[in-house]
Amino acid sequence: MMLLADIGNTHFHIYHGDSVEHLSYAKAIEKYKEQKLCYISVKHQLSKVIEQISQWKNISSMVHIDGEYETMGVDRRALCLSYENGVFVDAGSAITVDVVEEGRYLGGYIFPGLKTMIKSYEDISPLLKTELNRTISLAQLPSTTKEQISYGIIASIKALIDKHSKEKPLYFTGGDGKFLSTFFETSLYDEALVFQGLRHALKEYELC
Amino acid sequence: MMLLADIGNTHFHIYHGDSVEHLSYAKAIEKYKEQKLCYISVKHQLSKVIEQISQWKNISSMVHIDGEYETMGVDRRALCLSYENGVFVDAGSAITVDVVEEGRYLGGYIFPGLKTMIKSYEDISPLLKTELNRTISLAQLPSTTKEQISYGIIASIKALIDKHSKEKPLYFTGGDGKFLSTFFETSLYDEALVFQGLRHALKEYELC
Repeated sequence: MMLLADIGNTHFHIYHGDSVEHLSYAKAIEKYKEQKLCYISVKHQLSKVIEQISQWKNISSMVHIDGEYETMGVDRRALCLSYENGVFVDAGSAITVDVVEEGRYLGGYIFPGLKTMIKSYEDISPLLKTELNRTISLAQLPSTTKEQISYGIIASIKALIDKHSKEKPLYFTGGDGKFLSTFFETSLYDEALVFQGLRHALKEYELC
Repeated sequence: MMLLADIGNTHFHIYHGDSVEHLSYAKAIEKYKEQKLCYISVKHQLSKVIEQISQWKNISSMVHIDGEYETMGVDRRALCLSYENGVFVDAGSAITVDVVEEGRYLGGYIFPGLKTMIKSYEDISPLLKTELNRTISLAQLPSTTKEQISYGIIASIKALIDKHSKEKPLYFTGGDGKFLSTFFETSLYDEALVFQGLRHALKEYELC
C-alpha cells in the first residue's frame, strides 16, 4: 500500500496501516522524500516546498463529500468520509464537530482548541490564569475559579455535542480526541479516522 | 439614597435607581469624588487611588452569600443576592454563570467573554479570523466557516445554560447580556442586577 499523509496546521501525520506517525514538517520531508506518498494538506505555506518532491502526490482534489461547503478543510472532508453516519470530532489546534447522515454532510461547528481556550482566560485577567483540570467531574457544579474555568470549557463542548449525537455514533480523533472522548458514555476514539476516510475516497480512483 | 458603584475589570458602573451609568475610571472619579458613594470593586490595581477618596466607602466586606467560595468575585456575590432562586449570567469581559437556590450559592462556571472568544480563533489560524455573526440561527447546523465559529460559541454557551435553567428563572446582566438573552425563550435582562443584590446585602446594615 502506498503511504498516506495528512499535513496539518502543526504536524505531519503519516499512516502506516496499524499506526499513525506524527512528525515535524522538516523531519517528515527528510525521512520520506524518496518514497511514493499521497497527501492532503491544510498547511498552504508549505505548498511550494512539497510540490517539488517528485515522489509525492497531492490528492486533495479527490476528496469530496456530498453537502460539503467550498472552504471546508480537506482533512475535515476526509474525516467525514470515514463512516456513513456519525458525529465526527477532530480535537486539535481547533476542535471541529461535523455531522454526517447516510454519507451526506449536514453541517457542523468549530471551537477553539483546548490549549487556546484555556489561554484565552488569562488574556482577560491575571486572576483567571490557570491550567485545564483534566480530572474534573461534570457531575456537580464547581466552586473554585480553576474548576469553574475547566468546567466551562469541557461541559459546554459536551453539552452541545450531546445534543447532536443522540441517535448517531460519536467518533473522536486528533491530539485531544482521546481525552475529550472520556467525557462521553459511548464513543470511539481512532487516531486514523482521517486516513480511513482517505482510503474510501481513493477506492474510486484505485490509487492508493 | 446613597450612590452605589460597581468597579469592574474595564468600567465604572454607577447606579441611579432607574438607570446605570457606565464611565471610565478617570471620569467616574472626577465626576463623583465629592459625593457620598458606596462601592464594590474587582479592579485591585485601583485600590490605592480609590481608598484616598474620603467620601467613598468600600462595602465589599458586607457582601456575602451562603455557599460562596473564598476567591469568588464580589460582583458575582452581589449578583447572586439579587434573587433567591435563579441562574445568573453576567456577560462581560468574561461570562460567569451562577446557580442559586433558596438564597444559597450552588456553584457555577466561567466562559471567556464573546470578544475574547472570537479573537482566539484567529490565534489558531488566519483562516479562522472572523467576526461574530450576531444574527445566527441556532435552528440548523451551519455550513460556512464564519457561521460554524459563531455557532460553536453561542450554541455551546446556550446548551450548557439550558441544562441548568430548566426549572429556574434565568437572569442576564453585563455588556453582552442583552444580546445573549435573545437566544433563550424565557429570560430576564436587567443591567442593574448587581445593584439589586447590593441593596439586599446592605439592608441588614441600613447603610445605603
